[in-house]
Amino acid sequence: MTAKIIDFLRERRPEGPCLVVDLDVVRENYLAFAHALPDTRIFYAVKANPAPEVLALLASLGSNFDCASVAEIDMARTAGATAERISFGNTIKKERDIAAAFARGINLFAVDCEAEVEKVARAAPGARVFCRILCDGAGAEWPLSRKFGCEPDMAVGVLEHAHRLGLAAYGVSFHVGSQQGNVEAWDAALASAAGIFELLAERGIQLQMVNLGGGFPTRYLKEVPGVPSYAQAIDGALKRHFGNRIPETIIEPGRGMVGNAGVIKAEVVLVSKKHESDSVRWVYLDIGKFGGLAETMDESIRYPIRTSHDADEKAPCVLAGPTCDSADVLYEKTPYDLPISLSIGDEVLIEGTGAYTTTYSAVAFNGFEPLASYVI
Amino acid sequence: MTAKIIDFLRERRPEGPCLVVDLDVVRENYLAFAHALPDTRIFYAVKANPAPEVLALLASLGSNFDCASVAEIDMARTAGATAERISFGNTIKKERDIAAAFARGINLFAVDCEAEVEKVARAAPGARVFCRILCDGAGAEWPLSRKFGCEPDMAVGVLEHAHRLGLAAYGVSFHVGSQQGNVEAWDAALASAAGIFELLAERGIQLQMVNLGGGFPTRYLKEVPGVPSYAQAIDGALKRHFGNRIPETIIEPGRGMVGNAGVIKAEVVLVSKKHESDSVRWVYLDIGKFGGLAETMDESIRYPIRTSHDADEKAPCVLAGPTCDSADVLYEKTPYDLPISLSIGDEVLIEGTGAYTTTYSAVAFNGFEPLASYVI
Repeated sequence: MTAKIIDFLRERRPEGPCLVVDLDVVRENYLAFAHALPDTRIFYAVKANPAPEVLALLASLGSNFDCASVAEIDMARTAGATAERISFGNTIKKERDIAAAFARGINLFAVDCEAEVEKVARAAPGARVFCRILCDGAGAEWPLSRKFGCEPDMAVGVLEHAHRLGLAAYGVSFHVGSQQGNVEAWDAALASAAGIFELLAERGIQLQMVNLGGGFPTRYLKEVPGVPSYAQAIDGALKRHFGNRIPETIIEPGRGMVGNAGVIKAEVVLVSKKHESDSVRWVYLDIGKFGGLAETMDESIRYPIRTSHDADEKAPCVLAGPTCDSADVLYEKTPYDLPISLSIGDEVLIEGTGAYTTTYSAVAFNGFEPLASYVI
Repeated sequence: MTAKIIDFLRERRPEGPCLVVDLDVVRENYLAFAHALPDTRIFYAVKANPAPEVLALLASLGSNFDCASVAEIDMARTAGATAERISFGNTIKKERDIAAAFARGINLFAVDCEAEVEKVARAAPGARVFCRILCDGAGAEWPLSRKFGCEPDMAVGVLEHAHRLGLAAYGVSFHVGSQQGNVEAWDAALASAAGIFELLAERGIQLQMVNLGGGFPTRYLKEVPGVPSYAQAIDGALKRHFGNRIPETIIEPGRGMVGNAGVIKAEVVLVSKKHESDSVRWVYLDIGKFGGLAETMDESIRYPIRTSHDADEKAPCVLAGPTCDSADVLYEKTPYDLPISLSIGDEVLIEGTGAYTTTYSAVAFNGFEPLASYVI
């Protein structure tokens, strides 16, 4: 929460739920990453928040961009990034989208299997590819499935296949899981990456780059380690596994870049009980799972919520959204403590919502507008 | 799947994933409800699919409309429904939205607590209200939480409060859970409703209506009972609990009205394994949890999928969407059988997707467009 955001909300009084992003915080976050990891190129994960103002600021600061689609590539270009500063980081791409990206000059693609390598070889001949390997995601708050990446020993074959098809076998990537609280989470993946470098070197293929992915957390209810702690742990792991042949590195922060830069303003629509004798209230907001707070799925991400009654006594409540959907409940298994005096019409501020909110919101579920956004 | 939809896709060959809805099926569904429940008014749950063509057809057939927001009320009016054919069925409403609905002539509101009654009394003086009661949702495939409704014995007080504030205490509603496979699911709720009618009659308040809600299933992979079976069971339960004083009844079908009228056309983007020795493939489509298939959440709704290889041998696969989000996996806990010959670029048809797809889709997650829709 920043004074700039508080002033904006007081002066503009926007109607309906909305996200407000403070660019000063984004700048601070970028500079913190750049300072802590001076030898690492930063590829901002555009999907976290593709607001044009955010992309333009990051482009002006020198950031690179990790894009999930051709549309995101075009957003990054519009923001001022040249093609060599953009990667197509989705391992699942239509061949025609790879061709469209290549036509725009994009020369860095993620793969995790031979079929994807073949698409890139056909649609972007000679391009650089990095192979994503699986990570277990232990320590991450947002679930990491096995959706992306292959087993490390398979990556050797995938990259060799790329080399054989005339692509530049460029490196290895992994993701330690989003909102990763353990600074040592990179160690095991870097050990695997070093092993892949070695096996390919034996076959005469020199990989150059390790993509350390994202996972850098933002502060929600619990304290998280700062960027310098992550940088130090990663630096140690790189030296441990690569010795004096440290590869190029890149990182892909998304949540860590914009999460704490945004605040959602919402309104209490109803406070009620299911029976007079119930001890737990239900508090219904005008934003829910389908209006931008999708990351409350399985109660994964627990946002801090501020109200004007925070000095009052608190009690647990079930927190839910405004739609006619039974699944639109934010926190129930672990009820959320809110002031007993909180009542209908009160404004609430949901902090740490700069990442993964606006773009997740549904187009019109129940007729509600998608989440409005102001970048200041 | 209808010939009209197959012809449309063959002739128009739309690029990218899209939903195609056949209005003839919607008409058949409406007529089946109207025929099986001739004494019941049908309020279509607009949230299931608010396509203007669907609403206009239903308005012309004489349907009423259950709306979740002022935006949905306006869609129903634009489609030709007059105010007396529209209910504001969301129990969670801003007072200014109740006022906006009342200004449009809406005179039927859902409530489930005294605080909501007070909002309606202030913003829509004299209006009719019905109180929603809790149901356990046993037998439903889409999870029914305790989000809507109050305990039956509390409903008596809520409706009495409405009467005291000058509103018309009009009836009781409940929802047996979406995609309800048990035709007897209405029985227990009707017993509760009859009890509420009786207790209020003792206090001199004559309720008139029971809103039987939705829950009528559409056919996915498993056969479901037809509308006549539901009608017969409901009729029996009404007679059992209300004797010769059968109240007015309304139903709110959404999924049952449009689910089987729609088919999503999608494309296989990638087929891969995480290791050469894995027995289960991953199949990635160009549509996923954030592109319209939100009801695959927790693998709740299992859609039938047709391919041009369906005569070939099948094997289980994990099915996932195209976004860079680990949570964008459709079926993994229970893998989905698809033809072994299915390959990159193949078209797949996802049946039973006429309800709860387009409006759930994210505005632009990962830069992907919301789900396109054609109503024919």
